[in-house]
Amino acid sequence: MIEFYTAPTPNGHKVSCTLEELGLEYNTHLVNIMAGDQKNPDYLKICPNGRIPAIVDTEAGNFPIFESGAIMLYLAEKSGKLLPADAKGRSLVTQWLMFQMSGIGPMMGQANVFYRYFPEKIQPVIDRYQNESRRLFEVLDARLGESEWLADDYSIADIANWCWVRTYKWSGVSREGLDNLDRWLKAMKEKPSLQKGLEVPIPLDSLLDNKEAADEFVKNARTTVAT
Amino acid sequence: MIEFYTAPTPNGHKVSCTLEELGLEYNTHLVNIMAGDQKNPDYLKICPNGRIPAIVDTEAGNFPIFESGAIMLYLAEKSGKLLPADAKGRSLVTQWLMFQMSGIGPMMGQANVFYRYFPEKIQPVIDRYQNESRRLFEVLDARLGESEWLADDYSIADIANWCWVRTYKWSGVSREGLDNLDRWLKAMKEKPSLQKGLEVPIPLDSLLDNKEAADEFVKNARTTVAT
Repeated sequence: MIEFYTAPTPNGHKVSCTLEELGLEYNTHLVNIMAGDQKNPDYLKICPNGRIPAIVDTEAGNFPIFESGAIMLYLAEKSGKLLPADAKGRSLVTQWLMFQMSGIGPMMGQANVFYRYFPEKIQPVIDRYQNESRRLFEVLDARLGESEWLADDYSIADIANWCWVRTYKWSGVSREGLDNLDRWLKAMKEKPSLQKGLEVPIPLDSLLDNKEAADEFVKNARTTVAT
Repeated sequence: MIEFYTAPTPNGHKVSCTLEELGLEYNTHLVNIMAGDQKNPDYLKICPNGRIPAIVDTEAGNFPIFESGAIMLYLAEKSGKLLPADAKGRSLVTQWLMFQMSGIGPMMGQANVFYRYFPEKIQPVIDRYQNESRRLFEVLDARLGESEWLADDYSIADIANWCWVRTYKWSGVSREGLDNLDRWLKAMKEKPSLQKGLEVPIPLDSLLDNKEAADEFVKNARTTVAT
């Protein structure tokens, strides 16, 4: 069994979508990041960086794993799916996975910080991160113009990038004119396992339209950290 | 043979240090990033993101690889060194490698942008990235208080994090009071292969003290992209 510690963010969805797509059994533990429960000493034993997501594999002596990209690699290797076994095929997946980890994720994340949360509106900084995210979208678009998926076959690299790129509106990044990216976004959105993954740990999209239900959900949410 | 495209930056050094530590044969091609040669169409065939480093493995049908973290994984797997073969051991390495790719690298990188290069000095933004880098240093320090290396044994995870953390002064990030991190930085610095790796593609540390030699070096540097 996989014990899965998460919150409804793109990095959390990367792992929930992977778990769903691989058909692995898991227990979800909502980490209340607004309350700072990710800095709880028990949780730091699982994730020394104090961030979500993290997992514990009870079938491997309660082995803890942090960093969404590392979790995805571990789960794909464990299942023998969504990651080829040969060196070149596997490398193509890790290249586009690393592109998300070092580029798409951090740059869209910083766009979110300065566009949505930072106490001051500093336009040159917002521009920097939105422009860099757009540049990275164009790199994805070019790749998806020569290949149906980011690697040769559908893989964890597609899941990782999609969980971030689909939130382009929140980051204020345009996808105008990127037809290959559009085609891929639509193909990903139609996958039932990914739709299910996005509902973990909270059906956020439906709650966003219903403040009362959202408040109730958060009130009842408990953080359970047990290894 | 590995054809290695690089410039003297922490991400370039991650790969040069790995190549040296693994004892692999390679040809170095300096990519003149100040002149924008990383956006050259021939180079984009190797690295669609238009960044350094990238490699081409001529022993694998001229297979191109971009993203420093993906290159390190590929080279370590090819050599059977610096990365354990068992699932848990390998995962521990990828966890700390991903920590560098998604955390240390992007946050120190943004600290550099706003502390060193950005046209305006915007103190709250500089603070944000220096503080977040410091927080990540503390996570490394805690880990190095319970383990000699980041994973169980010396690995590509140590090389990846070290190539960034060693540049803390440039990023304006303090390592005061982080005794475990200090111990590890010293142990890494003493490794002859890493010392050699830092001289690739340019002995930057020595050129920094000699402007005339540096100018001459840059003048003579040619970008050679041939696959």
